[in-house]
Amino acid sequence: MKMMEEKLKIDKISKGTVIDHIDAGYALTILNLTGLDESKNLITIGVNVSSKKYQTKDIIKIENVFLNETQMQQISILSPNANISLIENFKVIEKKKVKLPRTIKKLILCVNQTCISNSEKEPIDSEFTVLEEKPLKIQCIYCERIYKLEEIVFTSIEKKEKILKQRIRL
Amino acid sequence: MKMMEEKLKIDKISKGTVIDHIDAGYALTILNLTGLDESKNLITIGVNVSSKKYQTKDIIKIENVFLNETQMQQISILSPNANISLIENFKVIEKKKVKLPRTIKKLILCVNQTCISNSEKEPIDSEFTVLEEKPLKIQCIYCERIYKLEEIVFTSIEKKEKILKQRIRL
Repeated sequence: MKMMEEKLKIDKISKGTVIDHIDAGYALTILNLTGLDESKNLITIGVNVSSKKYQTKDIIKIENVFLNETQMQQISILSPNANISLIENFKVIEKKKVKLPRTIKKLILCVNQTCISNSEKEPIDSEFTVLEEKPLKIQCIYCERIYKLEEIVFTSIEKKEKILKQRIRL
Repeated sequence: MKMMEEKLKIDKISKGTVIDHIDAGYALTILNLTGLDESKNLITIGVNVSSKKYQTKDIIKIENVFLNETQMQQISILSPNANISLIENFKVIEKKKVKLPRTIKKLILCVNQTCISNSEKEPIDSEFTVLEEKPLKIQCIYCERIYKLEEIVFTSIEKKEKILKQRIRL
């Protein structure tokens, strides 16, 4: 009986957002990057869930939270096939697909120290052109350096003002 | 109908581990620290789930994985009230409570640069005495510096050899 209650509590979302068809293994990175992991709301996450469309996928359900434009763009970089559903009264009231923009501004750091986006005197906002969507390949518009997904260093706008819960020294 | 299938896939674990009664908001840190987030197995996570015993809690279910001693100790530091259940054929075959040891060896870094545990010539393994369990207060046995939970820097044994999926510059 207790098990049954547990299930209900974890599963049902009356109002909030479902992020589905996340590339397998990316849900936790998405939560971290978007700052959603700092939420005090109920979040349920499935990692490596079997999927008909893709082999495996991740899924995130978060109560009482709707995503902003920055968060949608961060998700599109990590998982261009993700779907966003907005839930009200346990029903899907809107479905969106994330869309990777042609140029990505501010969200990613160019790690080339000599790139003018890193100029100490007059730093300018980073900007990258998307060369290929999947697997992702982007190019800095200033120094022309090319990055693959696994080489990207994100700047976390949502987390900038926050204290990390725990640091891990690798 | 599709919704029902999704639920089943996410909920049932035939074999593996359930980590329950994790302090609210610590599940993602636990997954990161223990290296469980690198698993290719099905993981379901509930964050800020309402609980009778405590107000809210986190819960992690991971298929086909059983925890080692290091992982159990890492969990005990972050969530001394956590319960571990081992599952076989959808049934709990063993229940364990994590136990915070009196001394914590190697898992935590003393950030005091002059502490002999950080000696460049002859570094020795860190060791901390647990002064208080909740809220956690530990003391380095060498330099006697005292740390609260939120000040702790962990050394991630599980992750040392691994490449991070994505870096975030704060």
